[in-house]
Amino acid sequence: MELKLVRMEIPEGTNIILGQTHFIKTAEDLYEAVVCTVPQAKFGVAFTEASGPCLIRTEGNDQSLIDTCVKNLQALGAGHVFCILIKDAYPINILNAVKNCPEVCRIFCATANPLKVIVASTEEGRGVVGVIDGSPPKGVETAEDKAQRKEFLRKIGYKL
Amino acid sequence: MELKLVRMEIPEGTNIILGQTHFIKTAEDLYEAVVCTVPQAKFGVAFTEASGPCLIRTEGNDQSLIDTCVKNLQALGAGHVFCILIKDAYPINILNAVKNCPEVCRIFCATANPLKVIVASTEEGRGVVGVIDGSPPKGVETAEDKAQRKEFLRKIGYKL
Amino acid sequence: MELKLVRMEIPEGTNIILGQTHFIKTAEDLYEAVVCTVPQAKFGVAFTEASGPCLIRTEGNDQSLIDTCVKNLQALGAGHVFCILIKDAYPINILNAVKNCPEVCRIFCATANPLKVIVASTEEGRGVVGVIDGSPPKGVETAEDKAQRKEFLRKIGYKL
Amino acid sequence: MELKLVRMEIPEGTNIILGQTHFIKTAEDLYEAVVCTVPQAKFGVAFTEASGPCLIRTEGNDQSLIDTCVKNLQALGAGHVFCILIKDAYPINILNAVKNCPEVCRIFCATANPLKVIVASTEEGRGVVGVIDGSPPKGVETAEDKAQRKEFLRKIGYKL
Amino acid sequence: MELKLVRMEIPEGTNIILGQTHFIKTAEDLYEAVVCTVPQAKFGVAFTEASGPCLIRTEGNDQSLIDTCVKNLQALGAGHVFCILIKDAYPINILNAVKNCPEVCRIFCATANPLKVIVASTEEGRGVVGVIDGSPPKGVETAEDKAQRKEFLRKIGYKL
Amino acid sequence: MELKLVRMEIPEGTNIILGQTHFIKTAEDLYEAVVCTVPQAKFGVAFTEASGPCLIRTEGNDQSLIDTCVKNLQALGAGHVFCILIKDAYPINILNAVKNCPEVCRIFCATANPLKVIVASTEEGRGVVGVIDGSPPKGVETAEDKAQRKEFLRKIGYKL
Repeated sequence: MELKLVRMEIPEGTNIILGQTHFIKTAEDLYEAVVCTVPQAKFGVAFTEASGPCLIRTEGNDQSLIDTCVKNLQALGAGHVFCILIKDAYPINILNAVKNCPEVCRIFCATANPLKVIVASTEEGRGVVGVIDGSPPKGVETAEDKAQRKEFLRKIGYKL
Repeated sequence: MELKLVRMEIPEGTNIILGQTHFIKTAEDLYEAVVCTVPQAKFGVAFTEASGPCLIRTEGNDQSLIDTCVKNLQALGAGHVFCILIKDAYPINILNAVKNCPEVCRIFCATANPLKVIVASTEEGRGVVGVIDGSPPKGVETAEDKAQRKEFLRKIGYKL
Repeated sequence: MELKLVRMEIPEGTNIILGQTHFIKTAEDLYEAVVCTVPQAKFGVAFTEASGPCLIRTEGNDQSLIDTCVKNLQALGAGHVFCILIKDAYPINILNAVKNCPEVCRIFCATANPLKVIVASTEEGRGVVGVIDGSPPKGVETAEDKAQRKEFLRKIGYKL
Repeated sequence: MELKLVRMEIPEGTNIILGQTHFIKTAEDLYEAVVCTVPQAKFGVAFTEASGPCLIRTEGNDQSLIDTCVKNLQALGAGHVFCILIKDAYPINILNAVKNCPEVCRIFCATANPLKVIVASTEEGRGVVGVIDGSPPKGVETAEDKAQRKEFLRKIGYKL
Repeated sequence: MELKLVRMEIPEGTNIILGQTHFIKTAEDLYEAVVCTVPQAKFGVAFTEASGPCLIRTEGNDQSLIDTCVKNLQALGAGHVFCILIKDAYPINILNAVKNCPEVCRIFCATANPLKVIVASTEEGRGVVGVIDGSPPKGVETAEDKAQRKEFLRKIGYKL
Repeated sequence: MELKLVRMEIPEGTNIILGQTHFIKTAEDLYEAVVCTVPQAKFGVAFTEASGPCLIRTEGNDQSLIDTCVKNLQALGAGHVFCILIKDAYPINILNAVKNCPEVCRIFCATANPLKVIVASTEEGRGVVGVIDGSPPKGVETAEDKAQRKEFLRKIGYKL
């Protein structure tokens, strides 16, 4: 078994959500989860069928994002994994809808940061074992940082 | 630390769900989650208590499936992990009920495919680090594949 | 890439919950999830911001537990990871509220057992790849163990 | 305004679920909620569109149950109300899936009992104001009744 | 049909939750929902079985609160209704757990205010049609009221 | 007791969501539920505190919609009721987030149709007993209507 770092492609202005799922209905259900929560979002969805024809199944409303989802899943090479790339919306908007999809097992990460996925590669296939999501912590917030964090969330209207 | 591939036993016609949980109440709660959603299913549930007597706790209505859950968890050797094997029902039927169990942390995978679990083995114990669920992707669906996928889901009545 | 075992500090009488999340709002939202479910709990929350200033963001109502959350996350060194330490309450009380937080991706584990986290360390950052939660299974419960397990849950009033 | 009692038709061996919803997508989404949870169930779904053509929209896999849903909704005459009739499955199996539908507002009741719905009838339309679900209580359970209740749930395998 | 106002008894320091449910398993499931979320709470649960023996089914850990739940449901006289009375905890702590119970249809109200329930009484049974929860609004908050509201929630630690 | 029909004001291009809740934290939590799901929406939230000062508590990002929420709740005059008016977004986008709010008991309706609320008025206060949401059904969909319904949902991209 070999562990590899696979860099995900995340187009400018886009967030990525990666997860484990099962069943071919995932493609349509994730599509609906996104569209019914943030209809104005541009997004792609792809999912690696892991038996039979083993095709990467795709949906979405932005071909370029769909294509990048496919590239990301090809680079991972793992079965039953899905990738969502979303623009004009944020993971916080849709994550609960994605978690509620009856086929979704777990979400590995949701991020706009540089993302490297740790993949275990074996003769019998591949699996995601973890993610390196953005940069390591550089310090602990001070009282002033805390005040600025709260102020920021209130300025953008996410908290009152 | 050593990474090992552990093959899960999945009897013909059965699906497996593997996850991380906590607390001994898991065994009864997962039993109820399955029974109250698909009462006609045949299934086994097992869970590795990770302190005190450290027993594999079991429930279910099919002794053979319970026994195979136990074998799978013994092969994994990791604490606070659960295994469900289910027949006459599919993970999509019960996954949201499993996710809603107040002890369940996350679901590693749900599948009927050949499944190998990547286990980290140390002197201090073992942990699941990933799954190789079925086969890697072999291609990307064409417009025709997409049409067939949708047709298939509509033929089995899962979509309209 | 190197895999390391990182031991989490879990103060006496405390449970730990570790997970993957995204977005700086996590700190306040996890705080509220805990407080609104078990107001009398003593707890700390910390989260590793993974872009910009990359600070460990903290909330809670017990400075000592907050400080230990920070130490745990510093030891992990991974981005977008959160740690909750909770006293006078149990993970089963709050886990569904944590799963419902719109920023939370997944929960790695919830436990009062000795906990070692498997961390992948690379030049480009770090990621959690698994947990060793407590001790490996030592046996399978007998009919008598099963009866005692059920009796125990009924004695503490968690089941009827 | 006049309050009327409207008796729902519930075919032998069937349970009814009545609720308030919005948006025409309800018909397909309720269909999927049922099918993806208990695929072997026979059921009908109907929903009263409340603007434009104001048609009763229907789905399901049993024409007789669909027809009875329509009759029930015609008898109610209220907008944005849905009716599910289900055989070979029970409300407890599907109620959380129904609650999770993004269009569903609330569920009035779920029952196999004789059901009369209290409808407010005005010149401007009709609305459901309550349900008379089965018979009024005749007494309080004794210790023996309680023991029998628990035994019954354990005999049918719903509790352990 | 007659509409009656039925006053609920809410002991000092207690909150009431009233709702519509189905199936006899409700009693145990609501018990567990409360206990597993706020184990230290004192509470009673009662539920009006609406077919067969039509008994008021009860659980809880405080006999006085259980008895008052029974009295409340007797006063209502409606089938498939549940009542929870809870002390040393608040509805906000447990409401999502109650909503997640697979038998629960809807929650009428959750309150510590004086509560009168509007009951439709017919020859064929009774049904809840609404609640009068506390007092009607007396005014609209000013900027100063708003500031005090936010300050209050932050003083009790429910918001940051 | 008197039953009255109270017409809700729903500005052009706006949808209304009405429900029952408890606790003063509702105002901030509903605000966050909307903002974190559809940040670009214009909306108002109001809630009738039902004890103490009994003020209508408000939040939102559009003063005109907030004001209309207040007018609607004043017209209802019932305690512990909330009103959301939302523009540039639809109830289907946010309803699950609203249902997940830990204070929310139930949702009466979600609609852009003309809405009349049935209110019970007593000397001791008022309560919502039902809604007349849009127009009564005028017919049952034919095979052609059904085809058009499905086509419409696919044309707007809500289904595939």
